[in-house]
Amino acid sequence: MANQVHPARGMRDFLPVEKRRRERVLRVIRDAYEDHGFEEIETPVVEDANRLHAGLGGDNEKLAFAVMRRGLTVDDLRAAEAPLALADLGLRFDLTVPLARFIASNRAALPPVFRAIQIAPVWRAERPQRGRFRQFMQCDIDIAGEPGIAAELELLAATADALTRLGIPDAFIRINDRRILAAALEHARVAEELREGALITIDKLDKIGREGVTEELDGRGIDGARLLATLDAIRGLVDGGEAEALDGFDEGVLGGVRELLGASVGIRLDFDPTLVRGMGYYTGPIFEIAHPELPYSIGGGGRYDGMVGRFLGQELPAVGISLGFERLVDLVALPETGGREAIALLVDKAVAPADALSIKRDLVAAGQTVRMQRRTKNVTGLLEQLAASGATHFAFVRPGDAAATLEVKPIA
Amino acid sequence: MANQVHPARGMRDFLPVEKRRRERVLRVIRDAYEDHGFEEIETPVVEDANRLHAGLGGDNEKLAFAVMRRGLTVDDLRAAEAPLALADLGLRFDLTVPLARFIASNRAALPPVFRAIQIAPVWRAERPQRGRFRQFMQCDIDIAGEPGIAAELELLAATADALTRLGIPDAFIRINDRRILAAALEHARVAEELREGALITIDKLDKIGREGVTEELDGRGIDGARLLATLDAIRGLVDGGEAEALDGFDEGVLGGVRELLGASVGIRLDFDPTLVRGMGYYTGPIFEIAHPELPYSIGGGGRYDGMVGRFLGQELPAVGISLGFERLVDLVALPETGGREAIALLVDKAVAPADALSIKRDLVAAGQTVRMQRRTKNVTGLLEQLAASGATHFAFVRPGDAAATLEVKPIA
Repeated sequence: MANQVHPARGMRDFLPVEKRRRERVLRVIRDAYEDHGFEEIETPVVEDANRLHAGLGGDNEKLAFAVMRRGLTVDDLRAAEAPLALADLGLRFDLTVPLARFIASNRAALPPVFRAIQIAPVWRAERPQRGRFRQFMQCDIDIAGEPGIAAELELLAATADALTRLGIPDAFIRINDRRILAAALEHARVAEELREGALITIDKLDKIGREGVTEELDGRGIDGARLLATLDAIRGLVDGGEAEALDGFDEGVLGGVRELLGASVGIRLDFDPTLVRGMGYYTGPIFEIAHPELPYSIGGGGRYDGMVGRFLGQELPAVGISLGFERLVDLVALPETGGREAIALLVDKAVAPADALSIKRDLVAAGQTVRMQRRTKNVTGLLEQLAASGATHFAFVRPGDAAATLEVKPIA
Repeated sequence: MANQVHPARGMRDFLPVEKRRRERVLRVIRDAYEDHGFEEIETPVVEDANRLHAGLGGDNEKLAFAVMRRGLTVDDLRAAEAPLALADLGLRFDLTVPLARFIASNRAALPPVFRAIQIAPVWRAERPQRGRFRQFMQCDIDIAGEPGIAAELELLAATADALTRLGIPDAFIRINDRRILAAALEHARVAEELREGALITIDKLDKIGREGVTEELDGRGIDGARLLATLDAIRGLVDGGEAEALDGFDEGVLGGVRELLGASVGIRLDFDPTLVRGMGYYTGPIFEIAHPELPYSIGGGGRYDGMVGRFLGQELPAVGISLGFERLVDLVALPETGGREAIALLVDKAVAPADALSIKRDLVAAGQTVRMQRRTKNVTGLLEQLAASGATHFAFVRPGDAAATLEVKPIA
């Protein structure tokens, strides 16, 4: 063996058996979304660097792979004041920034309320580790042009349907609203300049617990106990158990969340006032898809009303949910479809290639899936190998044979 | 309107109607290839730069988009002796180099004769012009591990089947063999160091004609008339019309080409001793898919026995054919499939979002494809818009309605 040859670091090849499985799961998701009236679009894998680095991608921006400008000279290298000055394109790190750009580019050709499906890879230069890949698939649905929670409800129902069809009915969705978080910070008198940090700490509840969060908030100069108590009170307000109102709270926002929680979307919805979601662009309801057996989320999303406007030059409300396909695909156990029959032709050496081909073509024309295979001495081993790669039947091909005279047998 | 927002230069967005059409055409190609026993694989869109720039990609190597190394510092920029020294990855410019790398990476998990499908985008930094894109789809099939023309025959038959299913029966395939070209150069006594240039000139026959080619060959110090006469003689030899043999000709090679031409693969095969194909890695038969109404090819391929070995460290014969999807998709007129019914729900303002959603969910559960739509005053205009985006039926949704009571009508 020569030197080991691997795909690029942190990236994966897919062999036929994995590729088939992935495509089947994607097909189920795509079908569910299409049934719910969403339509698939496609954008290029690269976007102009200034768009990717417009401050909309949060921490993910830093993970974007930069594509070099064409025709760079050594003088350009010497003159550049930063590495990114040498890049004019970048691989997308999510599907939301490209969607906002797509809508801005194609607004005139889209209906007033546009329901988009994007099922496509994204790239992030994450430190390679178990379960993290530098190229991975996302399955996004977004609704642009609808300001009310009708959009959130449709997204949640489509997502619930996809998860149900995938056989993951235990999944549930945690819900919060960015405006609730903002009001809580206001109510707990957290100084303006400390609020972003406060959210970052609250986001760690799962990892470091209430005590850890209180301590970290205190360390940031925030009254941690008070902030957490405020969030608890909000939980009571939304659940309707407590009558007492909190200062500075918009009843409309609470009412919207109650309406979401009260609707039947086909999946359990849990209100969680401590849910933050990392991205800075969210402006309203936010979601995280969870599963009782998993320590991490399998998707998420939210409303990002300001973002399309950044590209379009006029406001356009939008909300989306993204499924983390790589985490999902391992959970899914789709029932075996029986699959198509596939006949392996074990061709004798003495048969002329053109004659073997003629038999194969006749079988394909009759609707069969056919694999040609030179007959080897160890037929048992060969059949095992063929069965493993999906062949269900076999037939020997000897000189003088024709498609009609072959004896096709199932591989036992 | 703010500043115009476009996709990255030379690249395209696909709106739903185009995306659907493209996916349908790809589905037909994929099905044909799968019926012929090929199996789809996937590789990452980037490969290590040293593999992309290993001299296997011919002119296309120069068109590869380079992806910058992570963590570059300004000092790195100053110290770099060439721009490419700053890149450790590149976007693939074809699917053949990645396939060779894939086989080297996964040899142990693949059958001895492996039939691969790759349907995936590639990137080339071409000068943007009509009909040339910087991101475009290729549909490749390759057979690795089979040294004989049985592989060529299977590839040609699968390609013929795909083209037939796409409704392009007029397509035909021009065939030559690199070893025939080499023998012709030898026979015409073209000096070793002039042969590469001679092939480049012969490749221009379509564009500049026989006179132009003769002149250009003469200009290169080659006896142009003699070389073309040799190629004409070879045509005769293969067609069997002339008995006279030519010095230095391997009867085995001629016999192989005759065997290819004589087989019934489902598409017209034309021998063309002047066919060159650009890539340097071809070692045997070469193909170009042509259409009588088109001045350019719609695909091509050939045998590249030495290439996988470059990565694998041991020889493995391989041959492939690539369909130029972007040129093909414009030729294709698939019959309309009738399509699925899609019901547009025109929802009255007075209907609560949760109630509208409940109706939608019931219809989807009953197997319908459903699009929600706020009812506007101009219903006629709205229906036209909905029909254009694929809706076939509509129903008004008023307060108190349920899925069972809706009056669903076809959009006239």
